[in-house]
Amino acid sequence: MMEPLNKQATIEQTARAAAEAATHVAVISTESKNEVLSLLAARLEHDRRIIFKANAEDMSKSREAGLGEAKLRRLELTEAGIDQMAEGLRQVVALPDPVGQVTKEYEAPNGLLVRKIRAPIGVVAMIYEARPNVTVDAFALCFKAGNACLLKGGREAAQSNEALAQIISDILLSRQIPATAITALTATSREDIRTLLTLDQYIDLVIPRGGSELIRFVHEHSRIPTVQHFHGVCHIFVDESADVDKALKICTSAKTSAPAACNAAEAILIHRSIANDFVPKLVDAYTAENVEVRGDEAVCRLATAAKAANSDDWGKEFLDLIVAVRVVDDLEAAIAHIHRYGSNHTEVIISENVENQRAFQERVQSSCVLVNASTRFNDGFQLGLGAEIGISTSKIHAYGPMGLEELTTQRYVANGDGQWR
Amino acid sequence: MMEPLNKQATIEQTARAAAEAATHVAVISTESKNEVLSLLAARLEHDRRIIFKANAEDMSKSREAGLGEAKLRRLELTEAGIDQMAEGLRQVVALPDPVGQVTKEYEAPNGLLVRKIRAPIGVVAMIYEARPNVTVDAFALCFKAGNACLLKGGREAAQSNEALAQIISDILLSRQIPATAITALTATSREDIRTLLTLDQYIDLVIPRGGSELIRFVHEHSRIPTVQHFHGVCHIFVDESADVDKALKICTSAKTSAPAACNAAEAILIHRSIANDFVPKLVDAYTAENVEVRGDEAVCRLATAAKAANSDDWGKEFLDLIVAVRVVDDLEAAIAHIHRYGSNHTEVIISENVENQRAFQERVQSSCVLVNASTRFNDGFQLGLGAEIGISTSKIHAYGPMGLEELTTQRYVANGDGQWR
Repeated sequence: MMEPLNKQATIEQTARAAAEAATHVAVISTESKNEVLSLLAARLEHDRRIIFKANAEDMSKSREAGLGEAKLRRLELTEAGIDQMAEGLRQVVALPDPVGQVTKEYEAPNGLLVRKIRAPIGVVAMIYEARPNVTVDAFALCFKAGNACLLKGGREAAQSNEALAQIISDILLSRQIPATAITALTATSREDIRTLLTLDQYIDLVIPRGGSELIRFVHEHSRIPTVQHFHGVCHIFVDESADVDKALKICTSAKTSAPAACNAAEAILIHRSIANDFVPKLVDAYTAENVEVRGDEAVCRLATAAKAANSDDWGKEFLDLIVAVRVVDDLEAAIAHIHRYGSNHTEVIISENVENQRAFQERVQSSCVLVNASTRFNDGFQLGLGAEIGISTSKIHAYGPMGLEELTTQRYVANGDGQWR
Repeated sequence: MMEPLNKQATIEQTARAAAEAATHVAVISTESKNEVLSLLAARLEHDRRIIFKANAEDMSKSREAGLGEAKLRRLELTEAGIDQMAEGLRQVVALPDPVGQVTKEYEAPNGLLVRKIRAPIGVVAMIYEARPNVTVDAFALCFKAGNACLLKGGREAAQSNEALAQIISDILLSRQIPATAITALTATSREDIRTLLTLDQYIDLVIPRGGSELIRFVHEHSRIPTVQHFHGVCHIFVDESADVDKALKICTSAKTSAPAACNAAEAILIHRSIANDFVPKLVDAYTAENVEVRGDEAVCRLATAAKAANSDDWGKEFLDLIVAVRVVDDLEAAIAHIHRYGSNHTEVIISENVENQRAFQERVQSSCVLVNASTRFNDGFQLGLGAEIGISTSKIHAYGPMGLEELTTQRYVANGDGQWR
């Protein structure tokens, strides 16, 4: 019985230390935060051997354990990967500090000078895949937004995350900042995470990112507010007035450029009045790029290369070179399909009809709704946030790409001259 | 076994109907929403007899059940109460519609014209005290923000809430709006609420307001994001440079003008260097207004009218004519006390020293931090929001007074011309 009790105490101590660090991090100057991040970029470039050594251990263990090739590639840190982390850090340095930003300022009728300002959230716990680069990205964004963070990456990346967190802690200590502003939770069990999810007296926000099973686990057990980065079942509706060339280019690239990305297109809806012309062209284009098309009856009739879709292919996140294609009667039917099967992530209308564009953007309430552009533009960098910690499919707190601003809250400060009531 | 199963189905059906209504309410024009709210104001004024009759039943049942006088007063609907509800509705009509408001607009480097716009949350479930006026206020704010709502008021107000919801539903139906845009959950048990809190496929946000026990129950069982309106343990720090007259007026009124309000002051911290002069004056002023002072050793030495505070008086929400008073060494000690005992609601510094004012406002991260003004100004109306559904002590989504804007989320819409990647 002693061991689990001790473990629980350790998780709680870790969370408490993060909460204490958070009150310090909240008031660090922009210059000091940028200095830490710039130093970190330099140290990553300089200490790559240490990082590669730790990563090699993770890689060999994971190979032995039979981890799949795609997951091994996400786990591996290459020279280019380190360069990218350093470059990402320098981008975060260049972004404006959200903390203290005044979002509203006015004199209330009672004479109070009121300001609404951005403030850190406190302690952010992030639970994510076995991708060591996320450890550095997540720390950088949380820290610049004035938060302490608890980072629980996939266990296959434990050594790499430990090494990265150690480098970060060293830099923090050298700047008189509590090292517990970052903790890599590398030796924690599922049971530890369950405990962590109850520590709402220390942790302010939990961000689960990755597989459905993980997100469901967090969702089920968390007493702490969560912002979920859940799956993207993204749709493209090709309206009757669509420019066919634009539509073909967008539909194919949105599937093929990164089939495992959450903003890849998973289903194409085609207006019945252009189906005879468009469906054969689209299926040809997909086939030429090795994409498997699963079509409804109408699609299969128009293009023999299409396979018949099962009912569970609608609303499925394939994360692969597979796409569902359906012919719909009109804009209404397309919107109804999206309401039923979409995941509130990203939706696109390809149309030259301004009224239909507007109706689609008004009535489809996904986190990003685009006209005549690919689903793959729902991305923090592409939308101008500079960097993102992920794309939220929760409507509460942050919806869509979650960058520095979304890692803050807003609070009021008001100055009076003796006002009472 | 059949009955509870049926009940569960009913709660689920109710939530599903709200979710269906929400897709309609999301796109209702500002004019139509304002028309509904104006009609409601007129109907409340016209149908007061119906409302009084229902309220009288609630009152007599509650009197029989021995409900306390303060709670009976909150339950009772008077002529003035009806007038206030109608006036409140007309104020919400006058407020700008948040839905569709563009909060950011820019052209991204990829040529996309990007807008970030306010959008409804969807279905908001609110759980609150036996105060029928909140039923009307909460509906008005949720509806104007484009949301459907499930309103669970204290069971003592069941008849009143039923009558009010019926009037609202009638008006909605007469405007071809689904009546399920509002549901008063009047016959639900604790077990039903527990079921409701799992229905995250239909309900987007839960707002618990009221007693600690209720908020803890919701917090413990909810799988739906919650924004808590928890207790206010509000502090006033009287710095060494304080203007004594301002300080006395603010400290006394912040306690006496509404002792049961969450933004009433619960504890006064006094800088040691002005304690000899200020403490006797403050204790005299409180005593003159029948406020019981619970002081630390220094306070009790300086003013015999003060009783000795227990250790659990620090951090207590008295909700009564009782105040805790403590002498602290300096600004640092005041901030440390607030970090330890505060509830992130409202804090005040009374000081003529601009550096100390700034340090206090920067380092104390409560939802509203005021300089030389009463805690009681942390209020949606006083801070210029026009109306509020309560004051959030959660940092996620909304922190501080929660008005129309805070009942929305923000989403991206982007327009391109064939962009792909």
